[in-house]
Amino acid sequence: MVVVMSPDASDPQIDAVVARVREVGGEAFVSRGLHRTIVGLIGDVDDFRALNLRGMPGVADIIQVSTPYKLVSADHQPGRSTVQVGADSGVPPVTIGPGTFALIAGPCAVESLDQTLEAAAMAKAAGAALLRGGAFKPRTSPQEFQGLGKAGLRILAEAREATGMPVVTEVIDPSDVGLVSTYADMLQVGARNMQNYALLQAVGAAGRPVLLKRGIQATVEEWLMAAEYVAQRGNLDIVLCERGIRTFETSTRTTLDISAVPVVQRLSHLPVIVDPTHSAGRRELVLPLARSAIAVGADGILVDVHADPDNALCEGQQALAGADVRELASALRRLVPATERQPAAPDAVD
Amino acid sequence: MVVVMSPDASDPQIDAVVARVREVGGEAFVSRGLHRTIVGLIGDVDDFRALNLRGMPGVADIIQVSTPYKLVSADHQPGRSTVQVGADSGVPPVTIGPGTFALIAGPCAVESLDQTLEAAAMAKAAGAALLRGGAFKPRTSPQEFQGLGKAGLRILAEAREATGMPVVTEVIDPSDVGLVSTYADMLQVGARNMQNYALLQAVGAAGRPVLLKRGIQATVEEWLMAAEYVAQRGNLDIVLCERGIRTFETSTRTTLDISAVPVVQRLSHLPVIVDPTHSAGRRELVLPLARSAIAVGADGILVDVHADPDNALCEGQQALAGADVRELASALRRLVPATERQPAAPDAVD
Amino acid sequence: MVVVMSPDASDPQIDAVVARVREVGGEAFVSRGLHRTIVGLIGDVDDFRALNLRGMPGVADIIQVSTPYKLVSADHQPGRSTVQVGADSGVPPVTIGPGTFALIAGPCAVESLDQTLEAAAMAKAAGAALLRGGAFKPRTSPQEFQGLGKAGLRILAEAREATGMPVVTEVIDPSDVGLVSTYADMLQVGARNMQNYALLQAVGAAGRPVLLKRGIQATVEEWLMAAEYVAQRGNLDIVLCERGIRTFETSTRTTLDISAVPVVQRLSHLPVIVDPTHSAGRRELVLPLARSAIAVGADGILVDVHADPDNALCEGQQALAGADVRELASALRRLVPATERQPAAPDAVD
Amino acid sequence: MVVVMSPDASDPQIDAVVARVREVGGEAFVSRGLHRTIVGLIGDVDDFRALNLRGMPGVADIIQVSTPYKLVSADHQPGRSTVQVGADSGVPPVTIGPGTFALIAGPCAVESLDQTLEAAAMAKAAGAALLRGGAFKPRTSPQEFQGLGKAGLRILAEAREATGMPVVTEVIDPSDVGLVSTYADMLQVGARNMQNYALLQAVGAAGRPVLLKRGIQATVEEWLMAAEYVAQRGNLDIVLCERGIRTFETSTRTTLDISAVPVVQRLSHLPVIVDPTHSAGRRELVLPLARSAIAVGADGILVDVHADPDNALCEGQQALAGADVRELASALRRLVPATERQPAAPDAVD
Repeated sequence: MVVVMSPDASDPQIDAVVARVREVGGEAFVSRGLHRTIVGLIGDVDDFRALNLRGMPGVADIIQVSTPYKLVSADHQPGRSTVQVGADSGVPPVTIGPGTFALIAGPCAVESLDQTLEAAAMAKAAGAALLRGGAFKPRTSPQEFQGLGKAGLRILAEAREATGMPVVTEVIDPSDVGLVSTYADMLQVGARNMQNYALLQAVGAAGRPVLLKRGIQATVEEWLMAAEYVAQRGNLDIVLCERGIRTFETSTRTTLDISAVPVVQRLSHLPVIVDPTHSAGRRELVLPLARSAIAVGADGILVDVHADPDNALCEGQQALAGADVRELASALRRLVPATERQPAAPDAVD
Repeated sequence: MVVVMSPDASDPQIDAVVARVREVGGEAFVSRGLHRTIVGLIGDVDDFRALNLRGMPGVADIIQVSTPYKLVSADHQPGRSTVQVGADSGVPPVTIGPGTFALIAGPCAVESLDQTLEAAAMAKAAGAALLRGGAFKPRTSPQEFQGLGKAGLRILAEAREATGMPVVTEVIDPSDVGLVSTYADMLQVGARNMQNYALLQAVGAAGRPVLLKRGIQATVEEWLMAAEYVAQRGNLDIVLCERGIRTFETSTRTTLDISAVPVVQRLSHLPVIVDPTHSAGRRELVLPLARSAIAVGADGILVDVHADPDNALCEGQQALAGADVRELASALRRLVPATERQPAAPDAVD
Repeated sequence: MVVVMSPDASDPQIDAVVARVREVGGEAFVSRGLHRTIVGLIGDVDDFRALNLRGMPGVADIIQVSTPYKLVSADHQPGRSTVQVGADSGVPPVTIGPGTFALIAGPCAVESLDQTLEAAAMAKAAGAALLRGGAFKPRTSPQEFQGLGKAGLRILAEAREATGMPVVTEVIDPSDVGLVSTYADMLQVGARNMQNYALLQAVGAAGRPVLLKRGIQATVEEWLMAAEYVAQRGNLDIVLCERGIRTFETSTRTTLDISAVPVVQRLSHLPVIVDPTHSAGRRELVLPLARSAIAVGADGILVDVHADPDNALCEGQQALAGADVRELASALRRLVPATERQPAAPDAVD
Repeated sequence: MVVVMSPDASDPQIDAVVARVREVGGEAFVSRGLHRTIVGLIGDVDDFRALNLRGMPGVADIIQVSTPYKLVSADHQPGRSTVQVGADSGVPPVTIGPGTFALIAGPCAVESLDQTLEAAAMAKAAGAALLRGGAFKPRTSPQEFQGLGKAGLRILAEAREATGMPVVTEVIDPSDVGLVSTYADMLQVGARNMQNYALLQAVGAAGRPVLLKRGIQATVEEWLMAAEYVAQRGNLDIVLCERGIRTFETSTRTTLDISAVPVVQRLSHLPVIVDPTHSAGRRELVLPLARSAIAVGADGILVDVHADPDNALCEGQQALAGADVRELASALRRLVPATERQPAAPDAVD
């Protein structure tokens, strides 16, 4: 941490900063420049943060040098992590992480058993390793379909049986975490809830892998701090998911921050995947964005598929169907090997 | 709602759109232009939304003409609303809305009884009508102070007794809404939770006025849809609070969207206030932004005050103290009458 | 300047940074922390910038401590500057800066002599000190009205004669700077040209005061660097104009960054005004935003007025007319004194 | 174009809109809904735009249905365009467009003949079809290296001779367009000048292909309107270049809007390439972003290379060198065929 003093800071003000740092056992190195003095701090950042140094007289700015997250940081663990999903699910588990590429696919919302089984079959045929599907749907408008709830979870569990794919589904209320954990193999925290700390702590304590979507307003640093909330409860089985950020551009629903993938892979050991469907909000962009996610080096993608998107209850305009799903499968076959990975597949039985 | 067809849409594609609209009882007017055809829809927007028109072949775009919120819309109610806070609190209630200007002030976080009483006294001396203070604190980093919880609520209730000001405090977990409602007169939903629908529904059902902060990523329309979630549970006692949006500018923590105040006052009947403290994140900007909020026509402001900001446990660098609080009071005295309002004050006893 | 090394930077890498800094005569202080080492640099920032330190092995980040602008910086000059406009114009000059508030008003585009004289009369009646009007119009679409050019400049000069107000007008091509300087008293650089360095240098050399609008994409720091380009040519008669930045919010054309006014007043000695008209793009928001600009402490505002906005050739939907202009005058009379300034007026003749 | 009336618009107000549209020969279809009336307009959008309909009483909003650009629109031309660069350059020309992928590489700034020849050799070895290099550099800070000017152009021409690659270079002042056209085969308009209309018109008239970078603040629509300015001067040899937009995220210099590539390819017939170097601003992100640009379907990429980036005068921290250039070449060899294109190469001599 570096304290930047104002150009007009007095010596007693500088001394006061140094004294306050030393009170908590830190060291402070004063460098006097032509225009300003800076004070470099050595010690525990968490201690320093409680000192309100920014509010002290003569202090112009505080610069964070170390990252505010620890457990999820690349410094914390050599090499990149893998996350196993579905360990006790009755179907072969799947591993997400370096060396493989995971397609996660399924319907935006679970509407019925038939619709879910159809979408799951499409997903599997395209090479999916995991099945996604929403039982609890957070919707911007209270008039929109909010999901089937527990009935939806049961359908997902049936689809897992039928297809052999572990299931990931979203949880939106901390009090539902137990229920959702009973049925699902991986808990998704959606973009709107990325800073819902009650929920982050609840999923952190649930003993299930977590898929943590980036909030559309969140910096990469805030996203990793949200992951840290989960990790602090003892759960490091976290897969990050970039799904677009809010910008001024309106030709897409959000702007897919494709650069975030290599940025996160340098800052954190966690796997990171991309959701081209929700980022773009338009079916015709899903395939090119999926290809770009594979090539940039993401550890997987999350894609909506639906057998009859015209009649979907949720986001039908962005779900892939028919020929598009086959083209996605073809892109995976060509591009995953070209980026020196292989498709994620059920873990071999020992 | 207007359906814009692609330039190359065929007649059968246009007919299919018209047929689908008529199936749900809507009317569709087709206007054929030089390059494109547009279809104007008349009927219930909620019915149309379920039709997935955007996903139909030949459809280029769907344009919403009416607003997606109803209860909170200016169309729903003639004139602007007032919200009464503290009706059964044992202290005189306060009314927020047109014709008055409400100062809401207090510490960012409740740290102790003494600290809270000191800050409350400062707030009252500056002309505050309501006391704010955080017992449950959502923090970006899990290392930071998370609030005193229930003990903090008790302290706030004592401060209400001592000062006669009704109390507003944040709730962050749906399961705490009952507890917080026992102590507080107004429930704050913070910016990070603006799209936490479980929480919105819980506060909507709690029978307490709600202070709904705008998410830093939220458009005005999404903010009003969040208010609609609360209103749908039968609670129209909602005060909106602009607190800055996330932009590229880094010289302030967020960018105060001062234009949102007159925009919201045209779109909705609800009162709207401004939080200059959390928007700027820097003490020296709070006073100019508070003045700008008064002059733009906001119905109030929310300001952090602290007797000893250097030792505050939360956001000390942005709390007003001492001379700054007196200058705030002076600005209120000059500018509130100059914008033809009077300070909000405890309602006269009948 | 502070060099932040990577956690895994080696000693030889650190030594290489220190050696490179010393080569150009700088000093480097090394502080070794638990996780990282930082190197504080003392000396001429411009020398350091040429060193490509960011590209050296082991370097994680470079943190700028001092500002990249000098002449326009608050450190460069004690107190805030005033800018005199119209010194050799044949009409009494006007001074913009602390202690006064300048209304600058007129039509968006000069369309004809009559239209300009009418708008100028409205402006003067409302208390304007300067007349604005566009002769060269930068338009997003090549189909839109591009201005009258030289004929427009002549009309502005006639309007100056008729009303006694000095004239500010935009210049968009470096090769027009001489021509525009012949007719206008202040040269406006528009938001789209804020980083048009050829133009900045040309207006810097022209010997006329400059009104420098902030680019809708520009940080406050970049805006001040653009002003530095002008200042380096020997011209410090610069007035900054905040006119909204581009954000995700679409209910206004741009988002007025009202906080930028107090931020700039702390970073720079230059006067700063606000353009509520172009920021909002909607007439009904101009008055509230004008009030907020006065109250925040801006040194002036720039407002479009037009006698017949329904038939304006440029941005008629945002020009004030009739009762709105009178209400603007009334707001100025109430709020300028309430913020302890007086209206800018023609300088008294000695 | 659709005119949306306010909910409280009166019949005479609606009639006035219809009458005004008919005055200019347009047709207006009135659809009366439950809450609002909308008026669909048929005719010439340019005529309607001059009507100031948005400013008329009772009008709530104007919705553009057709695009504001024509010549560059996908509707204007069946199929996607190709742009030939270097037709009269003395070296074999190169074609950019569908079916091929063009690597454009070279130094950020021309510093000397040797440095340019070295970088050009690296570029050629990596498979580049065109050489880039800056002779006129627009720099945010006036303290930074501004380029060699005419001497730089001569060096580029020598490098073209030596390597057989046509040359693209930036022009920043309309008065330099003639000079730059004498030496360069393609004129680059930089991001900061995307709305510098004087410059757009000058390059449009110069008879050279144009590389038009997207402004960091520009929507896709505004970018295409800037291209329309060029096209209106009779020049449709335009290649668009996405180079990142400004967002709140600070871990990269700008946020590469990878989605813009397929979006533009649907809206316009012009080729579109990606500049991963300037978007990211950090060398370690260039390779993953280059891969993502290939896979998304861009028609090429623009990459900085430098033989000695540690001593580069411009942006050394982002230039590729040594092993990174070889890895880029390898990525091109694997991914270009996997997306069913072939590398752009000098056109075969007839």
